[in-house]
Amino acid sequence: MTELSTLTAAQAAATISAGECSSEEMTAACLARIAETEESVGAFAFIDAEHALAQARESDAWRRSGKPIGPLHGVPVAVKDLIDTADYPTEYGSRYFAGRRPRNDATVVSRLRAAGAIVIGKTVTTEMAYFHPGKTRNPHDLSRTPGGSSSGSAAAVAAGMVPATLGTQTNGSIIRPAAFCGVFGMKPSHGLVPRTGTLPLSRSLDHIGPMARSIEDIALVLDAIAGYDPGDPDTRPLGARNFRDVAMEEFELAPRFAFVKTPIWDKADANTRDAFEALAEELGGDCFTYDLPDTYATAWDAQRAIMAAEMVFNLGRYAEEGGDLISPQFNALMADGRAISAATYLDALEDARAMRGALGELFEQACTAIITPATVGVAPVGQATGDPSFCSLWSLTGLPAVTLPLLSGENGLPLGVQLVGAMGDDARLLRTANWLVERLPG
Amino acid sequence: MTELSTLTAAQAAATISAGECSSEEMTAACLARIAETEESVGAFAFIDAEHALAQARESDAWRRSGKPIGPLHGVPVAVKDLIDTADYPTEYGSRYFAGRRPRNDATVVSRLRAAGAIVIGKTVTTEMAYFHPGKTRNPHDLSRTPGGSSSGSAAAVAAGMVPATLGTQTNGSIIRPAAFCGVFGMKPSHGLVPRTGTLPLSRSLDHIGPMARSIEDIALVLDAIAGYDPGDPDTRPLGARNFRDVAMEEFELAPRFAFVKTPIWDKADANTRDAFEALAEELGGDCFTYDLPDTYATAWDAQRAIMAAEMVFNLGRYAEEGGDLISPQFNALMADGRAISAATYLDALEDARAMRGALGELFEQACTAIITPATVGVAPVGQATGDPSFCSLWSLTGLPAVTLPLLSGENGLPLGVQLVGAMGDDARLLRTANWLVERLPG
Repeated sequence: MTELSTLTAAQAAATISAGECSSEEMTAACLARIAETEESVGAFAFIDAEHALAQARESDAWRRSGKPIGPLHGVPVAVKDLIDTADYPTEYGSRYFAGRRPRNDATVVSRLRAAGAIVIGKTVTTEMAYFHPGKTRNPHDLSRTPGGSSSGSAAAVAAGMVPATLGTQTNGSIIRPAAFCGVFGMKPSHGLVPRTGTLPLSRSLDHIGPMARSIEDIALVLDAIAGYDPGDPDTRPLGARNFRDVAMEEFELAPRFAFVKTPIWDKADANTRDAFEALAEELGGDCFTYDLPDTYATAWDAQRAIMAAEMVFNLGRYAEEGGDLISPQFNALMADGRAISAATYLDALEDARAMRGALGELFEQACTAIITPATVGVAPVGQATGDPSFCSLWSLTGLPAVTLPLLSGENGLPLGVQLVGAMGDDARLLRTANWLVERLPG
Repeated sequence: MTELSTLTAAQAAATISAGECSSEEMTAACLARIAETEESVGAFAFIDAEHALAQARESDAWRRSGKPIGPLHGVPVAVKDLIDTADYPTEYGSRYFAGRRPRNDATVVSRLRAAGAIVIGKTVTTEMAYFHPGKTRNPHDLSRTPGGSSSGSAAAVAAGMVPATLGTQTNGSIIRPAAFCGVFGMKPSHGLVPRTGTLPLSRSLDHIGPMARSIEDIALVLDAIAGYDPGDPDTRPLGARNFRDVAMEEFELAPRFAFVKTPIWDKADANTRDAFEALAEELGGDCFTYDLPDTYATAWDAQRAIMAAEMVFNLGRYAEEGGDLISPQFNALMADGRAISAATYLDALEDARAMRGALGELFEQACTAIITPATVGVAPVGQATGDPSFCSLWSLTGLPAVTLPLLSGENGLPLGVQLVGAMGDDARLLRTANWLVERLPG
């Protein structure tokens, strides 16, 4: 049975659709894998095997009745416990929110269900998606962090518990754990995926995105969750792309990569720097080194100012009411956020707009995607969720980013290759990512 | 000749269109009136009679050629010196910007010209549209302020210099001077009129709007200047209304007014309070008193926080560079603005959204327009531009507001009746205003 749990979401959907296995069998396989690994990995905040199987049986009955089925029909998935679900508690990884039960599904959860997915449970998040870690460990080395804040979503995919999950990112919370756990992860363009029903940290910076074991699965999940929602004022009523079809298209010409070291290159460890220099060399004429102008040096402070100020706006009252139920890390962030002036905040938003505009020109004129590390190195030992620095600029500017588990670092641990695309051009970014996956050995 | 200068813009346009007078004659009449009154009133920052007449002659030649003409063809207008004009300096009422010559017209100026208007000059603004006054005096009593910051625009219309002008409002800068000077003035819905090419004070609060001697003229100018502009991210690509036609329509049923005293009612002087109580009584069954909930008490602090913070963002660098060229009032505002925290600023924006939403329900359920004072009383003696408090809530929430010169206060000086409409329903607000003008005696 457990063999089914190794299928990608696309394979699982095809297998179920063809009647070669049922959703119940697929879900049972995932539950069996979870039973084997959850005690050591700790990816789930909530899981209800009976409820999951009951949904799978309903899904099977629907299919057998001959009704039309969605692209994720019968496929088990899990979502970060920052995202509301009407059938599971949603506690935001916070003791303050213990026992919280939302009345409604978040928009992305409704959309996953509409596409046929079986939401089998909620994955561990750090406290309110900030730095205080949950129980999850890295499946590649249990002494190491899976990264945060979407810790459980990354670990669940890496451990073979479910083929796909949803995470959220405000700084580095999708890309970093996906990279540490050696899976694919995507932070879509800001505004592509609606955040209605997800704990808001920072309207300017919050993103929801998928993690999975293939680019095709990332695209498949993105097809399900992307698109306008009047509940999220940053989404736009634009026509939908078919991400999966575009992602799987052949390139007529090779994409062209800008290798961007960023002003924080020295934060990357020596192994990571060497690995990326070698990767750029391997890509040869398809890759050129691009040095960001000095003006980008303010991006990290800008990201921090916006995040801290908007998190005080959204979460400050909980920290005030929460007393001992709130971690010292979180309270320290609130204190930092309260000290930020409106002028600093508005300047930071303006910096972000200017950088987004300048990067837009880079994509128009010179490259298909930026190639850059996902993290400073492999997952560190211990519980602390690691350094998000290589993600901050892309969260700030809202550009779409994916991490691909194509390199390995010390002890053979996964090292993510981050590709960043033009704003709103998520489909082409996925196609470029697929090209790179096929191009590189192993 | 000067008789022509007493025509409204609609009358002037009709007269010119019918060939009963030329734009040159109309412009000359306005210039003659300006020659008589400008020395005492001081409404203009820049005027160039020869350039105005040359434009008028071009306009006449165009009409005589039989080409199609716009709804303001040949009609002289003037715009606040906060609004860029390619053919006049634009100095923002500031010594720091002395000699500034923009390369392009602001969007509203291009649109006025496209509608056929002759822009004869630039009207006095207070320093960067804040409190430090310019030279303008109130035509009704030269010892009194015309109000600010659109001082010259209001005084020019009141003195019969031009039939219509443009002003800008961030707090009370259209409604207050229009009321003090006894003319019609409108602050359209936030986002209806694009601000491209106008000195930005506060994206959240800045509005451009017309002043004139009739509601029809207000609507006529609004028809010219309203509508989507990609340069102003708060404008929306929606279909245009015909404001003038709607404004002039008959009501089938009488409108219903909510008399809103606001939490700052005690700031209004006794004469004003009595005049509005009497007006509400006169309206009888068409008017009910509505007490805003206590939560609205924060609106004034919220308006102040947003304005000060966003003005630091937009203008702080000029204040820093300007030294003695910047007034103490302006520097004091910058200091206040720098002290505002991002959390206070974001809370203020949220308060504004909440109030806008709640007022939306009031309009949906109970009233056609809110009726409330435009100012605390008549124009005060002296240069200080007066109290904008009765405008702050409507600037904060972005609702459309007009002031109608229907009452008089001490010494027979004008007292404005402010009507506020539902967000985006500027056309109905103008029709309601027209109803009230026709309904009330005098």
